[in-house]
Amino acid sequence: MSIKRIHHLNFVVEDLDDGIAQFEKILGSHVFEKDELPQRGVVTARARVGEQWFVLVQPTDFELPPGRHLRERGEGFFLMSLEVDSMEDAVRDLESKGVTFTSDTDRKGLLNWWVRDLGRDHALGEQIQLCEERD
Amino acid sequence: MSIKRIHHLNFVVEDLDDGIAQFEKILGSHVFEKDELPQRGVVTARARVGEQWFVLVQPTDFELPPGRHLRERGEGFFLMSLEVDSMEDAVRDLESKGVTFTSDTDRKGLLNWWVRDLGRDHALGEQIQLCEERD
Repeated sequence: MSIKRIHHLNFVVEDLDDGIAQFEKILGSHVFEKDELPQRGVVTARARVGEQWFVLVQPTDFELPPGRHLRERGEGFFLMSLEVDSMEDAVRDLESKGVTFTSDTDRKGLLNWWVRDLGRDHALGEQIQLCEERD
Repeated sequence: MSIKRIHHLNFVVEDLDDGIAQFEKILGSHVFEKDELPQRGVVTARARVGEQWFVLVQPTDFELPPGRHLRERGEGFFLMSLEVDSMEDAVRDLESKGVTFTSDTDRKGLLNWWVRDLGRDHALGEQIQLCEERD
């Protein structure tokens, strides 16, 4: 098992439209598209930059992880999602090396993305997840 | 002016060898190479993942930005570096839109990377820099 690449980066913002305006100014010609993930308590905006997605998330529920992050750490980088060909193979391989996950099941993200968060027992774990695109 | 892609991501770690071991376990076959940037007060390790570099930085000087980040926010994501074709053009273009930078000059990073940090007056500014590779 090997990570293919960074799939997307999540940034928590206080206000989605302000975040979009800031990122569009910095990124140039990239345009953000809005969406939402009610089960994570966020509204989102995504833009493709090279081979990666940038995803801005504005929490609407401050008891769920993105909202807790904004409350505790403020705006900014929240999560790096690493692409794998097979979530099943990747999870089995990493668990055999002692890597833990916060759940036994995958979580549906935006579009056709399925994700699994690494456990918080790794120093950097809470900032990393795996992602598989499923047709 | 438009950003081409993410050039590299910096993660601050307390101990470089521990950080390398953790990241190599998660990333699979990617191998980190050590280096140092004395002027930033860090020792580093970098690995290429897809089209991006992952750079782990262990501060050796806690008065400089990476060391301050570790002291104030702990281990984890520190900085996203965005690749541009021409730093001069990119800085001029962004300054014309009101984006500020922490310095009037570029800073030499690892290898042939030259970087310029966005100002802290942007909500996400302190986490973003521009990067140009120069032969």
